Amino acid sequence: MREIGVGILGFGTVGAGVVEGLLQNGELIAGRCGIRPVVKRIADLDIVSDRGLAIPAGVLTTDAAAVIADEEVDIVVELVGGTTIAKQFTEQALAMGKPVVTANKALLADHGAELYALADERDTGIYYEAAVGGGIPVLRAQREGLIGNRIEHIFGILNGTCNYILTRMELEGLPFDEVLADAQALGYAETPPDLDIDGIDTAHKAVLLASMAYGAPVPMEACPTSGIRGLSKEDILNADELGYRIKLLAIIKQLDDAVELSVEAALVPKSAMIGSVNDSFNAVFMKGDIVDDTMYYGRGAGRLPTGSAVISDIMEAAADVIQEAGTPTGITMMREREVLSYLPADEVRKRCYLRLSLADEPGAMAQVMHVLGEHSINVASVVQKEQHSDGLVPVVVLTEQARERDFCEAMKRIVGLSICLAEPVRFRLEDFEDEGC
Amino acid sequence: MREIGVGILGFGTVGAGVVEGLLQNGELIAGRCGIRPVVKRIADLDIVSDRGLAIPAGVLTTDAAAVIADEEVDIVVELVGGTTIAKQFTEQALAMGKPVVTANKALLADHGAELYALADERDTGIYYEAAVGGGIPVLRAQREGLIGNRIEHIFGILNGTCNYILTRMELEGLPFDEVLADAQALGYAETPPDLDIDGIDTAHKAVLLASMAYGAPVPMEACPTSGIRGLSKEDILNADELGYRIKLLAIIKQLDDAVELSVEAALVPKSAMIGSVNDSFNAVFMKGDIVDDTMYYGRGAGRLPTGSAVISDIMEAAADVIQEAGTPTGITMMREREVLSYLPADEVRKRCYLRLSLADEPGAMAQVMHVLGEHSINVASVVQKEQHSDGLVPVVVLTEQARERDFCEAMKRIVGLSICLAEPVRFRLEDFEDEGC
Repeated sequence: MREIGVGILGFGTVGAGVVEGLLQNGELIAGRCGIRPVVKRIADLDIVSDRGLAIPAGVLTTDAAAVIADEEVDIVVELVGGTTIAKQFTEQALAMGKPVVTANKALLADHGAELYALADERDTGIYYEAAVGGGIPVLRAQREGLIGNRIEHIFGILNGTCNYILTRMELEGLPFDEVLADAQALGYAETPPDLDIDGIDTAHKAVLLASMAYGAPVPMEACPTSGIRGLSKEDILNADELGYRIKLLAIIKQLDDAVELSVEAALVPKSAMIGSVNDSFNAVFMKGDIVDDTMYYGRGAGRLPTGSAVISDIMEAAADVIQEAGTPTGITMMREREVLSYLPADEVRKRCYLRLSLADEPGAMAQVMHVLGEHSINVASVVQKEQHSDGLVPVVVLTEQARERDFCEAMKRIVGLSICLAEPVRFRLEDFEDEGC
Repeated sequence: MREIGVGILGFGTVGAGVVEGLLQNGELIAGRCGIRPVVKRIADLDIVSDRGLAIPAGVLTTDAAAVIADEEVDIVVELVGGTTIAKQFTEQALAMGKPVVTANKALLADHGAELYALADERDTGIYYEAAVGGGIPVLRAQREGLIGNRIEHIFGILNGTCNYILTRMELEGLPFDEVLADAQALGYAETPPDLDIDGIDTAHKAVLLASMAYGAPVPMEACPTSGIRGLSKEDILNADELGYRIKLLAIIKQLDDAVELSVEAALVPKSAMIGSVNDSFNAVFMKGDIVDDTMYYGRGAGRLPTGSAVISDIMEAAADVIQEAGTPTGITMMREREVLSYLPADEVRKRCYLRLSLADEPGAMAQVMHVLGEHSINVASVVQKEQHSDGLVPVVVLTEQARERDFCEAMKRIVGLSICLAEPVRFRLEDFEDEGC
């Protein structure tokens, strides 16, 4: 049976997961594919710590360049992370005509275009299933399973840390800071947690999904991004009472002549499939013009689930190496066109949830409604809650669709009203009407 | 750009969907893949009816053999259905070394092993994404995305007609016969509806999923199959009150030294993801030992969704043809071993829902509990419902896990009790404890 030599750069959580998966199921994989994946070399700065895995002598090294150059290494697996050394290693491997498998969404979101071009030039490929949705084979579904489809929209829950925090806040009624601290103590959240909770990790993944869907590199600047930092449990409770949950969503929509793209916390219906995605699970809802609604769900992070996706890429790269396929035909949907147009954030039409803190005065609500009406914002429902002990009257408004610019202007005017006693809170609301999510 | 000639056999619902999809998105697909799919010939007995599609002169013919033999046809798409002529056509195409794309689950479930062997012999492939889960790219996810995994279990909602009937029965409180008649009038269910409502269509798909998961042909006889015919709305209502829904499930589990396989109506928790799969949607829950839980969801039938899956296979076959790949490496997980062991139906351990109709007598319940206890069946909960107007007292029991043989024997004894006034009703209950479904 033909062997394929694998060189792994980075022996951290995911690297160890890949090696564990290959040790556990290597024979099974070989039986299925007729190709045996063999880990020839592993490079890491730390080659001393015990990962609980039986690694033969001579496999571990601190010299990444030697692994990349090793004649026995047919495929380079980049699991170093970050965008500096990882970029150098990736370029070195591609320059030698070796395919690179990576889980590094930041690297591809920031430098994808030049790396894909280099891979093309050297007739090899970059494989990155593990970069989006962890173990979920969502990129494969998109670029192969849905190859016959224009992608009408994608909604993604793509960050397990945020989804874990949101789920616990909702189920246990706990404040954001407490759940975050807990998640950090349990190792579910990094310290500092910024990349996760400020939505940047989700934006990296959104940019990769949009690039693949629309056939051109999507720059991070095209994706207005906010996260869940400081989300109040009051808003989670209000959402719950109205039949919604708050999720951090990647939102990608193909409009008539532009792509709408954002990462933001949004209310989604509890009764919809997307409302059932809890804990650290990820899910991607993708609608094609031919296939209609589809959805992919699973663990978006973790040593073994991410390892599963890396292994699937290793075997795809192995088949391409053995077939001497040139630029792999499997890796498509990436470079049909040079540029995309993006809908300016101001022009996005959306529904919103508003929480206002008003004075307990006659006519306060009327003033707010007047401002909303003047900015073409129709109100779908209003709930005035019990007065707080500090005298504020919380008012929760769900709006119909309106333009972001109109929301911004209306909010500015409401803040200027004397009856508006605290900064309004606003979230997008996605009701998935006519959408099987 | 390289062109690939496609010959389509069968211009019915799915055939027309494939052609429509290729007409609509052919340029997009060509841009993505660098390969242009061109429908060269279409064979059908009816070449007169208007399918609402612009077909060039000379493409339509009644002569399927001529399409298969046509030098311009690189890939044969079999959408004739059934297992007789479809088998001949498939064999003819494979014998000529042409890859076959098919949506025909019955053909592959009944004759897969010999057809795969023929494809191997002629260094070509059979592609059948559309045969399971309609537009959902679930087979691709399984054989490529999860290639590094032992499949621990699969739960599938695989028949849109049954799921549509069950959803309407539940939401509208309607009886089975009325919803079935409605579904037939709307074209959602065939006449006669046996293949769907008796679970046979689901079993065909279960057998294909199990074959791929465990690397050996699975005969239909290995899959005990029942359907939803005559399901009573009383059981749907009882399930609802207890927090469950009834779904027609394909159940596939890898046990220590055997595979458990069945198709049956089962109670699933409303709160679980699988409980949210409604209307004609399909979903497959697949757990791998590395990736953990994953799920794939979408439209399991219909002209365009099924067409989407066929198109994805056409493009995969096209890439294999152009690469002259020999036996396609992408099509794996099929033939690692010769045979599998199956757990005899009697030995399966499961939870059950029982609905008993007892006489209104002191001690009636005690007699039933005594029998269950003697057969090692622990009771998880019991609800005695209001007495019916005919004097029957309905009793609903949810059991803990027990062996099927014990359930059968206990039921026989209960039927023999004088206080048992009607045939007991029994369904499996899957609680997905510790399973992210």
